[in-house]
Amino acid sequence: MDDLKAAATAATRRGFLKTGLLGGAALAGSLASGRAMAEGDPVITEIQDWNRYPGDGVDARPYGQPSQFESHVVRKNVPWLTSDTISSINFTPLHELEGIITPNGLCFERHHAGIAEIDPANHRLMINGLVDKPLVFTMADLKRFPRENRVYFLECAANTGMEWRGSQLNGCQYTHGMIHCVMYTGVRLKHILEEAGVKAAGSWVLAEGADASAMTRSIPMEKALDDCMVAFAMNGEALRPEQGYPIRLVVPGWEGNMWVKWLRRLEVGDQPWQQREETSKYTDLLANGKARRFTWKMDVKSVITSPSPQVPIVHGKGRTLVSGLAWSGSGTIKRVDVSIDGGRNWHAARIDGPSLPMALHRFYYEFDWDGSEIFLQSRAIDESGFVQPTKDQLRAVRGENSIYHNNGIQTWHVNKDGGVENVEIS
Amino acid sequence: MDDLKAAATAATRRGFLKTGLLGGAALAGSLASGRAMAEGDPVITEIQDWNRYPGDGVDARPYGQPSQFESHVVRKNVPWLTSDTISSINFTPLHELEGIITPNGLCFERHHAGIAEIDPANHRLMINGLVDKPLVFTMADLKRFPRENRVYFLECAANTGMEWRGSQLNGCQYTHGMIHCVMYTGVRLKHILEEAGVKAAGSWVLAEGADASAMTRSIPMEKALDDCMVAFAMNGEALRPEQGYPIRLVVPGWEGNMWVKWLRRLEVGDQPWQQREETSKYTDLLANGKARRFTWKMDVKSVITSPSPQVPIVHGKGRTLVSGLAWSGSGTIKRVDVSIDGGRNWHAARIDGPSLPMALHRFYYEFDWDGSEIFLQSRAIDESGFVQPTKDQLRAVRGENSIYHNNGIQTWHVNKDGGVENVEIS
Repeated sequence: MDDLKAAATAATRRGFLKTGLLGGAALAGSLASGRAMAEGDPVITEIQDWNRYPGDGVDARPYGQPSQFESHVVRKNVPWLTSDTISSINFTPLHELEGIITPNGLCFERHHAGIAEIDPANHRLMINGLVDKPLVFTMADLKRFPRENRVYFLECAANTGMEWRGSQLNGCQYTHGMIHCVMYTGVRLKHILEEAGVKAAGSWVLAEGADASAMTRSIPMEKALDDCMVAFAMNGEALRPEQGYPIRLVVPGWEGNMWVKWLRRLEVGDQPWQQREETSKYTDLLANGKARRFTWKMDVKSVITSPSPQVPIVHGKGRTLVSGLAWSGSGTIKRVDVSIDGGRNWHAARIDGPSLPMALHRFYYEFDWDGSEIFLQSRAIDESGFVQPTKDQLRAVRGENSIYHNNGIQTWHVNKDGGVENVEIS
Repeated sequence: MDDLKAAATAATRRGFLKTGLLGGAALAGSLASGRAMAEGDPVITEIQDWNRYPGDGVDARPYGQPSQFESHVVRKNVPWLTSDTISSINFTPLHELEGIITPNGLCFERHHAGIAEIDPANHRLMINGLVDKPLVFTMADLKRFPRENRVYFLECAANTGMEWRGSQLNGCQYTHGMIHCVMYTGVRLKHILEEAGVKAAGSWVLAEGADASAMTRSIPMEKALDDCMVAFAMNGEALRPEQGYPIRLVVPGWEGNMWVKWLRRLEVGDQPWQQREETSKYTDLLANGKARRFTWKMDVKSVITSPSPQVPIVHGKGRTLVSGLAWSGSGTIKRVDVSIDGGRNWHAARIDGPSLPMALHRFYYEFDWDGSEIFLQSRAIDESGFVQPTKDQLRAVRGENSIYHNNGIQTWHVNKDGGVENVEIS
């Protein structure tokens, strides 16, 4: 289509728009949102540059990037949360995201010695210990096994950990952003273990990373033979470096620290190895000074992502859309309820999109906001019947010493101006 | 974890590895792939840089990018396919992708006047014509409607179009790469039409884009009220500029050209508008000189993505994994068969991952390659019972004049060296 035609079309439409809007009494107050357009809004009566001039051709971006107008949608760090620059965290911008898939560029990352940059040609996966045949695989070897594709959430055990002692961080990116959900492609760990031949006494698997922290975790054989994967792709393309490129372990429904990145070794043994990350870390210190350990599964949880402190209500009274996420390490989400009065009354939310086990679920709740202050909460129930608890219920059982496994109900206070704050109510 | 500990761990392992491999008779020939490791492979006996030194911290990449070792995985253009630089195409690198989700940065793009760069604050969607109330929406208005999340493939009607007259392009990126599949989030078009109120005579909807080509297509009201969406997000984040940011039309299962990008206007009418893109283009010229038109639905189709001309078999004889994609505008894929002898014998492939209507399906077929030349084909059958035809069957009905709607069976010839070529066999 040539420029001439585009210009002619635009001119015709411009004439129409002026007529339409000058006679626009029907428009006032009739919009879905209750927002009437100003007559003769130049944004629609004037031809815009993007309608007038051709844009970039396809060669400009062999690998595409977000719009310049989305530059605020990024992972963010909270510097004071970690003690040094190489052991650090950033957070998924949940408040800006939709659906259940996290784009690869926005998946939070947690690492203990920075991002390893590995040449896959020089990467190997070894399996040793209580096996019939110790084996070493190249990436090409791994890609000859049968593959599978599964959508799973990955949540850090410390997600929402700062909230054990009361509301702290003002934004769901910071309170709940140590989670992401992608489609993994890889090899079922079972196939690799079977290739090596697990000896009768083999009841645990150690997974070890190739980064400078040599991250190591013990995984019970039952889980290893069930649904664990050695994944090499996420959302269709190779893993990102910060997510373990070229391979990572996938441990569906269990805490993120066990999903060892840059995976280089699997050892079969007859007991857990008691590594640092399963003793002094990633255990739950109780009020009596004892620690719960091997609390691997991530329990049922949900959060309202919008409105939330980073995305207040800006449209005033009227039709308001509540959007949020729910998930459970025990399978699918059966139901989500939303409250606007701090948990006194609950309303069934609508779960929309695929409902896949151990994956994020998206829920919505629409209501007419009357402009008064409200206390927004969501409460998820998973297929096993587990109901998301309040924070006080959690504290009654586990005390306030831990930073791990806080799946309590989150409260957002919406004030009369639409501003949103992280609060707790009793 | 400090450097000291990482170094100590690595040193211990290094000792182990040397021992393990020197006594490694058990390794020879025992690998899944049949590939034995050389003893003392320095890649595993020597500490690698990524194990010795910490990598980048989290602040280095607020929006993540692929590994430097994946720089070959990009969209590619075929310059001679389009006549000028602003009306152009590039192709999804299907041969490098896994699962069913296409990462946003790798979704093929086809545009007619370059990529419009639109500031969403200055974008409006108007609805006019045979409606009770003409309306104009801002982006904020649209985000107050109920949302939905759906995974759909988008295929250009001209995908595989160069193959009507015989095999031409050597690589599934070029023969089949005008397709992608993402999770869309947006508003059901039905809600927007209902808000404006469609008059009794309203039986067609015109969708118009805001780019410099002012792309326009007519859509029957029945489809518009069924499953069409006005989408603002793909794979969780805002649409990419080349995919219509800030909004595009989603027309599930139908040809990509109708999924108008940079959507700015919907007009309700009582007949199709006979725009250029539904008359001289996107109609199917038959052998007798007449043209089929309104051939919107994309019929059942499949292609083997690996091995294929861009990814030959490099491992020699033995266990070989065939991976491919299947899809249908009529719903889910019920079955995929694979042949290694050019269609004489068919073997059931394994469909793995979510099976969603009008979305890509991933299939696998594993076999032991004996090193002789083979002719690889795949054949999909959708839930409506439609069986993917051969190219000759298609030509018998439709001739060879068209460039659109070629869903014929693709043949890859694998030679004795593992090299792969695009061929046709009768």
